[in-house]
Amino acid sequence: MKQIAAQIRDVSDFPKPGIVFKDITPLLRDPAAMHQAIQSMIAPFQDHPITVVAGIEARGFVFGALVASQLRVGFVPLRKPGKLPYQTQQIDYDLEYGNASLQIHRDAITEKDRVLIVDDVLATGGTALASCQLVETLGAEVAGCSFLLEISALQGRQKLAAYTLHSVLQYS
Amino acid sequence: MKQIAAQIRDVSDFPKPGIVFKDITPLLRDPAAMHQAIQSMIAPFQDHPITVVAGIEARGFVFGALVASQLRVGFVPLRKPGKLPYQTQQIDYDLEYGNASLQIHRDAITEKDRVLIVDDVLATGGTALASCQLVETLGAEVAGCSFLLEISALQGRQKLAAYTLHSVLQYS
Repeated sequence: MKQIAAQIRDVSDFPKPGIVFKDITPLLRDPAAMHQAIQSMIAPFQDHPITVVAGIEARGFVFGALVASQLRVGFVPLRKPGKLPYQTQQIDYDLEYGNASLQIHRDAITEKDRVLIVDDVLATGGTALASCQLVETLGAEVAGCSFLLEISALQGRQKLAAYTLHSVLQYS
Repeated sequence: MKQIAAQIRDVSDFPKPGIVFKDITPLLRDPAAMHQAIQSMIAPFQDHPITVVAGIEARGFVFGALVASQLRVGFVPLRKPGKLPYQTQQIDYDLEYGNASLQIHRDAITEKDRVLIVDDVLATGGTALASCQLVETLGAEVAGCSFLLEISALQGRQKLAAYTLHSVLQYS
């Protein structure tokens, strides 16, 4: 874990004054630490019958694609509205300030799928919860959610209490 | 190539009427075809001394992260403005209609790097050329550009004539 944590950088006042942002780009730049990170993200799910990984735009595409590759299953992108070209299912949800939406291709998953949701950071859990619900709308089962890091003070874990949740690193 | 091409779907009238969009999401959903696609994207660059892969937001994050993993080098995201938290270098460029910008973290690459630029689709080449120039602004060398597919009629290849360019699938 030390090797992974060493490549997470604190950036002050991003995206706005007073916020300390966890910058994961130094980790992406380090192939050995990144390999460890992906192995750690999938470790609790190795024996689960996961059929597909869903990654949340945009940093979740990086981690989701690599997790899917390691698990040897397909990858499904969860995207902001207007990005997916085919028939989509949408969920609208509230954020701390304002609201947001996510879309998935309707034919991307079926009732038989067991889906692992992947993103880089678990903060308030709003986007992750919406992702779980979006997948369930299509009849699939959420096998779990895996994050590189979790900002514990924001209590996303409580919001996702109904799901199996894993994070590699925890910050207060 | 047949297995890869079978998972590229034509979607009519996206993003606007009259355009036939090449939808790569069925390929992402097929781990065997996806593995072949990544192997094909890196094949010409196996013996090049590439030190890092740069992927263009957002679909380029999926392909770029997997290409970087296969080549056992780091990954650098090229992002739209306002997304990268640390010190950035920006390039502004013209598109067919309007203009766009890309940013990279200034400390993401150095003069010693040989960079492989990765994206899913080569169309007019405007974004790819801007990506090459952005990398060069930081003193690095562009080792080449690798795309899953190329829309030949849009002549992106001509725009990138100064660079080693590879695409797995070509469409007219």
